[in-house]
Amino acid sequence: MQHGGDVYSQRAPGGGAWLDFSSNVSPLGMPLAVLAALSATVSEWAAYPDPQSRELRTALSAYTQVPYEQLVCGNGAADLIFRLCQVVAVRCPAGEVLVVAPTFSEYEAAALQAGLSVRRFELAKPALELDTGIIAAVRAETRLVFVCNPNNPTGLLSERALLEQLAARCEQVGALLVVDECFLSFTATPHDHSMIPMLQQYPCLAVLDAFTKKYALAGLRLGYLLCATAELAAAVAATGQPWAVSTPAQVAGIAALRSTDYLTELRALIAAERPRLVAGLAALGFAVLPGTANYLCFRAPNNTPDLAAALRTHGILIRSCANYPALSAAYYRVAIRTPADNDTLITALSSVLQN
Amino acid sequence: MQHGGDVYSQRAPGGGAWLDFSSNVSPLGMPLAVLAALSATVSEWAAYPDPQSRELRTALSAYTQVPYEQLVCGNGAADLIFRLCQVVAVRCPAGEVLVVAPTFSEYEAAALQAGLSVRRFELAKPALELDTGIIAAVRAETRLVFVCNPNNPTGLLSERALLEQLAARCEQVGALLVVDECFLSFTATPHDHSMIPMLQQYPCLAVLDAFTKKYALAGLRLGYLLCATAELAAAVAATGQPWAVSTPAQVAGIAALRSTDYLTELRALIAAERPRLVAGLAALGFAVLPGTANYLCFRAPNNTPDLAAALRTHGILIRSCANYPALSAAYYRVAIRTPADNDTLITALSSVLQN
Repeated sequence: MQHGGDVYSQRAPGGGAWLDFSSNVSPLGMPLAVLAALSATVSEWAAYPDPQSRELRTALSAYTQVPYEQLVCGNGAADLIFRLCQVVAVRCPAGEVLVVAPTFSEYEAAALQAGLSVRRFELAKPALELDTGIIAAVRAETRLVFVCNPNNPTGLLSERALLEQLAARCEQVGALLVVDECFLSFTATPHDHSMIPMLQQYPCLAVLDAFTKKYALAGLRLGYLLCATAELAAAVAATGQPWAVSTPAQVAGIAALRSTDYLTELRALIAAERPRLVAGLAALGFAVLPGTANYLCFRAPNNTPDLAAALRTHGILIRSCANYPALSAAYYRVAIRTPADNDTLITALSSVLQN
Repeated sequence: MQHGGDVYSQRAPGGGAWLDFSSNVSPLGMPLAVLAALSATVSEWAAYPDPQSRELRTALSAYTQVPYEQLVCGNGAADLIFRLCQVVAVRCPAGEVLVVAPTFSEYEAAALQAGLSVRRFELAKPALELDTGIIAAVRAETRLVFVCNPNNPTGLLSERALLEQLAARCEQVGALLVVDECFLSFTATPHDHSMIPMLQQYPCLAVLDAFTKKYALAGLRLGYLLCATAELAAAVAATGQPWAVSTPAQVAGIAALRSTDYLTELRALIAAERPRLVAGLAALGFAVLPGTANYLCFRAPNNTPDLAAALRTHGILIRSCANYPALSAAYYRVAIRTPADNDTLITALSSVLQN
């Protein structure tokens, strides 16, 4: 499966670094406190990590207000997606997993690998918004539902009321509902949209989040799952090896949670740059979805050349959405980066379209 | 499952650091080149890691002389054990896995989690040596055999001739043979005992190794699997998430492979300290197995108090072997550390026995 962020396959033209709009990592780089904590502890990484991530989970529990026993950390959010699917497969071999199309491809990959069966709920074009159709799509035999909010690659945000209805429906049929909020911190109103406060109300609910994108720790791999029940958290924790989360990831996570100004600054940057990038893309003739996250998804007019390939010659990576079910080669996803980077992207796109 | 290295559950008496003889990590700490490489690259860990660990695998291929396509890296050797079992389970659901008892507990844990069935080949006391009985234990229905060489927790080394017979038998029944050589680098003669040269001869063979213990990178998590076929390597690589190996682990692995003097120094230290520690333990009345690795397994006489509990009050952790199948609370495993540390252990043990 192709993903964004592949800066390794090929060197950028001229041998320099790629300007990477294909991965959705914070453009601010790591918080300084994380850099400092990592640099100060390197020699301590010789010993095994704490398999229970106790200090990090304590900090996360205070940060999220979710009880410690309901929290599991993983080797990135992707690790937790695979472990969740294995837990569901043990409880119900070949059980049905409902995923949205398009969305992050690892939900389906993990479900299939665990031997679960996958059913896709296709979002209607051109809006590609999640609607009440997802509730009707949950069947008696559904065991697990993944929803990404805001969705990847569209960036579209779902209202909490809709997700609550979905949770109620999942509760009814005995399905687990996993809401992936990995990009919610980039939106203007994370607290109004997060399902974390709903964990107390829906025992079937789990919320996935990661440090990876919002704190620019993708290379370190750190995600976490907030479960409505300690029982689910324990089952996920008991799946796979004991030492999945490295010591540097634990150190970085603890330091990131203390970097309170970082997310404020990040949200301000994204909020300021999003309309600028939307306007720039629209001016070039692209149909831009009203994304709320740190990336934008747009559709190029027919007969547009392959923009991802063309931009590579400019040293720029963007994410072609050709391999997303329900999308096509006309769709692209670009990260929102710093003002200068975003200008570079628009200039390069403009030049590509003129040739 | 309890393991060694749990320095996190409790603080050491007086609040200082534990003197940890319970985990088998190199007592030399990380190679200096690794420390330098990590410190120099911290800010680069914001981006996603290379999912294929290309630079590291290229270096490993040169180091091991095993073709690049036959190499998979993992989030520690434990990650690869779990992924291997999943691969075997896909090919043969509920297939039989043969493990030695006693040995590293994660083989059995991973097999059971993948839905495989486990059969144990129990080593005869008091020698606890692997013998030709293991070959007879491989049945027509066996799909996977794990052998740890030298074995953990005994430290006993098996001859290559025996493992070759085992490989031939596995070949016969169509079982995969995984030889875990995570501790082989600590022995005096790794090249005479490694099964790596046999990969060309036995398509059923895979050799597991890790940076974790020998380069003291346990907190970073980095293991690798050398497969006789590119097909097995690809199947393991395709199991689980794409980004299992973090950027710091890849950076550390590349730098470790360049630290050629480190293993020489490490082997010299262990070779010098092993007989000293054996003599010290024997003088206290313990029956010490003739271990070849960087740890020793011994049996305490009847009516000896719980040494692990008693040593904790001295700020020392050792590994009780009470939870190893085929062993009992009379068995313990201790790492071989620096001369001063080893003296501290013997002194503390002596004091415990006198009280």
